[in-house]
Amino acid sequence: MHLGLVGLGKMGGNMRHRLRDAGHTVVGYDRDPELADVGSLEELVDALPSPKVVWVMVPAGAPTHETVDRLGELLGEGDLVVDGGNSRWTDDQAHAAALAEKGIGFVDCGVSGGVWGRENGYALMYGGSPEDVAKVQPAFDALKPPGEFGSVHAGKVGAGHFSKMVHNGIEYAVMQSYAEGWELLQAVDVVDNTTEVFRSWREGTVIRSWLLDLLVASLDDDPDLASIRGYADDSGEGRWTVEAGIENAVATPAITAALYARFVSRQDDSPAMKAVAAMRNQFGGHATRAASAGEPGPDPDLA
Amino acid sequence: MHLGLVGLGKMGGNMRHRLRDAGHTVVGYDRDPELADVGSLEELVDALPSPKVVWVMVPAGAPTHETVDRLGELLGEGDLVVDGGNSRWTDDQAHAAALAEKGIGFVDCGVSGGVWGRENGYALMYGGSPEDVAKVQPAFDALKPPGEFGSVHAGKVGAGHFSKMVHNGIEYAVMQSYAEGWELLQAVDVVDNTTEVFRSWREGTVIRSWLLDLLVASLDDDPDLASIRGYADDSGEGRWTVEAGIENAVATPAITAALYARFVSRQDDSPAMKAVAAMRNQFGGHATRAASAGEPGPDPDLA
Amino acid sequence: MHLGLVGLGKMGGNMRHRLRDAGHTVVGYDRDPELADVGSLEELVDALPSPKVVWVMVPAGAPTHETVDRLGELLGEGDLVVDGGNSRWTDDQAHAAALAEKGIGFVDCGVSGGVWGRENGYALMYGGSPEDVAKVQPAFDALKPPGEFGSVHAGKVGAGHFSKMVHNGIEYAVMQSYAEGWELLQAVDVVDNTTEVFRSWREGTVIRSWLLDLLVASLDDDPDLASIRGYADDSGEGRWTVEAGIENAVATPAITAALYARFVSRQDDSPAMKAVAAMRNQFGGHATRAASAGEPGPDPDLA
Amino acid sequence: MHLGLVGLGKMGGNMRHRLRDAGHTVVGYDRDPELADVGSLEELVDALPSPKVVWVMVPAGAPTHETVDRLGELLGEGDLVVDGGNSRWTDDQAHAAALAEKGIGFVDCGVSGGVWGRENGYALMYGGSPEDVAKVQPAFDALKPPGEFGSVHAGKVGAGHFSKMVHNGIEYAVMQSYAEGWELLQAVDVVDNTTEVFRSWREGTVIRSWLLDLLVASLDDDPDLASIRGYADDSGEGRWTVEAGIENAVATPAITAALYARFVSRQDDSPAMKAVAAMRNQFGGHATRAASAGEPGPDPDLA
Repeated sequence: MHLGLVGLGKMGGNMRHRLRDAGHTVVGYDRDPELADVGSLEELVDALPSPKVVWVMVPAGAPTHETVDRLGELLGEGDLVVDGGNSRWTDDQAHAAALAEKGIGFVDCGVSGGVWGRENGYALMYGGSPEDVAKVQPAFDALKPPGEFGSVHAGKVGAGHFSKMVHNGIEYAVMQSYAEGWELLQAVDVVDNTTEVFRSWREGTVIRSWLLDLLVASLDDDPDLASIRGYADDSGEGRWTVEAGIENAVATPAITAALYARFVSRQDDSPAMKAVAAMRNQFGGHATRAASAGEPGPDPDLA
Repeated sequence: MHLGLVGLGKMGGNMRHRLRDAGHTVVGYDRDPELADVGSLEELVDALPSPKVVWVMVPAGAPTHETVDRLGELLGEGDLVVDGGNSRWTDDQAHAAALAEKGIGFVDCGVSGGVWGRENGYALMYGGSPEDVAKVQPAFDALKPPGEFGSVHAGKVGAGHFSKMVHNGIEYAVMQSYAEGWELLQAVDVVDNTTEVFRSWREGTVIRSWLLDLLVASLDDDPDLASIRGYADDSGEGRWTVEAGIENAVATPAITAALYARFVSRQDDSPAMKAVAAMRNQFGGHATRAASAGEPGPDPDLA
Repeated sequence: MHLGLVGLGKMGGNMRHRLRDAGHTVVGYDRDPELADVGSLEELVDALPSPKVVWVMVPAGAPTHETVDRLGELLGEGDLVVDGGNSRWTDDQAHAAALAEKGIGFVDCGVSGGVWGRENGYALMYGGSPEDVAKVQPAFDALKPPGEFGSVHAGKVGAGHFSKMVHNGIEYAVMQSYAEGWELLQAVDVVDNTTEVFRSWREGTVIRSWLLDLLVASLDDDPDLASIRGYADDSGEGRWTVEAGIENAVATPAITAALYARFVSRQDDSPAMKAVAAMRNQFGGHATRAASAGEPGPDPDLA
Repeated sequence: MHLGLVGLGKMGGNMRHRLRDAGHTVVGYDRDPELADVGSLEELVDALPSPKVVWVMVPAGAPTHETVDRLGELLGEGDLVVDGGNSRWTDDQAHAAALAEKGIGFVDCGVSGGVWGRENGYALMYGGSPEDVAKVQPAFDALKPPGEFGSVHAGKVGAGHFSKMVHNGIEYAVMQSYAEGWELLQAVDVVDNTTEVFRSWREGTVIRSWLLDLLVASLDDDPDLASIRGYADDSGEGRWTVEAGIENAVATPAITAALYARFVSRQDDSPAMKAVAAMRNQFGGHATRAASAGEPGPDPDLA
């Protein structure tokens, strides 16, 4: 099929390759002319046969809003926009409604796979009407992994990004799970080689997984992760997962723990712990002091 | 090699099969005469050539203590006891020291794999001196999965059970991660078929894993898990992981969340929430009442 | 001063009393004619001298939106609307802007104190311009507790409800703190009389507080809280506090734990724990079974 | 009454003053001769009339064990040891049993109040037989606050320290509750003066408490707590509370959150977050980078 692709960063660029390798014709646009096949969105749209299908692969929020708005101006009846970025699922309905006014279809598609996707395929979760999905199905088939799994028509518009959001929420918590286990294994002086224990878990265990494989790959490079700062960004989807839980009275304590650990990892000093220290000083009558990590310090309540 | 095996339940029984399939000679003892090859521990010990190697596969705590004590009486210089059960790692040192008085060696071995182990192999994490480990290495080689991973000599005595304990702590949290995602996906009316979304994640995603495969197998049988009560035991190792974290000032919020969710799942009513409800009644001036899950109830603070 | 008061439920009704006891003239309107002084919002507005001040004390969300909208139609230049309900602080800006188009001022006021407020006074946190606040200051002075604390001009519009929201978030977590301690004290058979221990804490301890006093009052009535179900609604403000934390990358683990405990308390069965049980069944090869609360159950990983 | 007091630090020293102010005769011993009334434990014991009552006020663990052991050698039939330190309640039974062999009684007493105790009285929770408690009751009456609350005979030996442990667990969580609220109020730019909001809460609110008063006192000195590092020790009792919960299958998520926040506050860098960052790098294909606290960073999953 012919496909327009907007956004040719690490993800979009690799996806262009995988689509072309499968025999599809891809016209790519990016703000960076080094990456782009055409000079503007207009040129991209002009280059496509009807019904025109444009896949948007730009950051969530304003960049996606702007791109979808502009495509709404350029496209027409029967054309289709696919939002393959990490948009919040609650944005999809608005995008779909705005495009529908001009008879343009909309499909939201969550994409997972990172830098490994070009080679292994991208997991895809998409939402939209069967008619709209059918228009982009050949691209989905090219992008997905070769096996029987890895892609799903999850439901109506929004279902794709919602599924991807939950996927990422789970991802946060699974990463946190391994991370806590690794810290504990490192902290207690009983295991000779933490990396070898993690490596052994890659087969036969209950916890074998791709994330475990990745962690072992990191430990192979740097067994104590000495070169890496204990600092983790969050990308929005973890936040949205917790918020969706709260709106629906669904407790997500492990996912939330993972999210909060990232928040705290980015603070130079914790205001909350300043307040705790301040209260302890008040009733203990003395300043708190450094203690070795493994040993409880003096109790200000028994000063 | 010749091996004595004490405890022939689901795990021990399957391990006997796998060991025999590999050509080893196994003499099994169990309290249940239907399962046992011999009528007593004495007979088992008598049936082994020296150096005698006895693998203990009975529940942690008193059953393991008693079996190790009795083997200390029956075995002698140069013999070896392997504790393959889920003992607390802090018990290993005491077992090893008691046996060492008679010149008997000790190896602790954490075993993972559940009912799938007979076919796929068991992941093994063991601790002990190189000499002691060497005596049982042929059995380890037969039990482990065929690939390059799945077994590790983790360190000195205790390192095997410690590693297995951390493995199980991670397991708790990873299971909780998927469980939270599943509850959220079920709760919001946007995805058509939750099972299909989970199934699609089996390839190409960041969160693909064996536990995910198992969850999909369950959902295939019962898409809403209607036949299963939301109730989960815990086996000790989750608790020990959290306690080991606390003793070493290592925060394990995701693992702890998983453990606490299991505690709460077993309560008919929560005493803590009775106390919360009691306080709300006091300042709100009225009894709390049922509200639909998705919607916040009336605020007693603004009665 | 003259004041219109819309909403005469438990909170509004008691506030009318306290305002009148202080010598103010209050015209009250409620949908329930039994409670109301006038038959309609129009009559209420007509009964007030200019500048007219109308205090809205109705549930957050739609009821408040509608009341504010209607007052926007009835009031005029120089008049003032006070929202004393538990509105989300992010609503305040919109209300203020809509009213400002007609020259009507707006003050948001968080009110705490529950059924004890009539006698002890209500804690007030309000936001708005100094000019607007001045118009309602006499009412604030009448409603607040007699001491030097208990009321604050927190900042611009929204600051009142934001402060009250955080107050309630803290309240959730403090209640949870006592509740956890009570459950633990009840669970271990070492203390003779849990109520007497809690009562003793009312003086001299670090944790003495009004909420502790209330819990002791409940325990006096029902020492095991046998008549109270472990079930707690949430009123919106706990959710908003956690969400405000997430939006600002502020971790609120204790407040969140309190919120989630309330969510779980309202579930007959936990979908998440069904999923956990399902996975355990898959790898343990047997159905989970009931275990006594205090003792870990059998490990499906060592079946 | 006559009382021997061992340990004259901030707590013990102030208690000696309060006991003497009430007319009791106190013989104090401390390793620091500047603080001591006598030169040795022997002299202290010799100076007391029979039945001799010795109150031990030294750090939990080895110092308390050693002091109790030594008193077991020096005291005799009918004498009494009171452990007023922060011992783990599980130590009390062993201390009581060892002393009972010589007919010496034992009472464990949890003491709260910090530096404010000398003036306001100390909250006391004690455990032991009625006969033993009666021997030290006059000292309890002198030490406790003047009102009707503040002391309790909680049950048998161990009940005092168990109650104090739970008190401190609650204390951790209540402090964390205020701390989270304060961080959030500081983080969002809507409230003009955070200190004034906290101060207003001292009356009329649901969350008024002594800890709130202390926090306001700190904020009065340093409104942004700029001079205080966000670093908090823990004293053992928080850990024991969580561990006691785990042993009894009682979930304590808020108390645990408070404990973990302290653990993390003492780490220069988080090993767990190194592992999270390492995994993100692996699948995102790039190093993580600094992001402003309030805004989610780039998603490595959509690099």
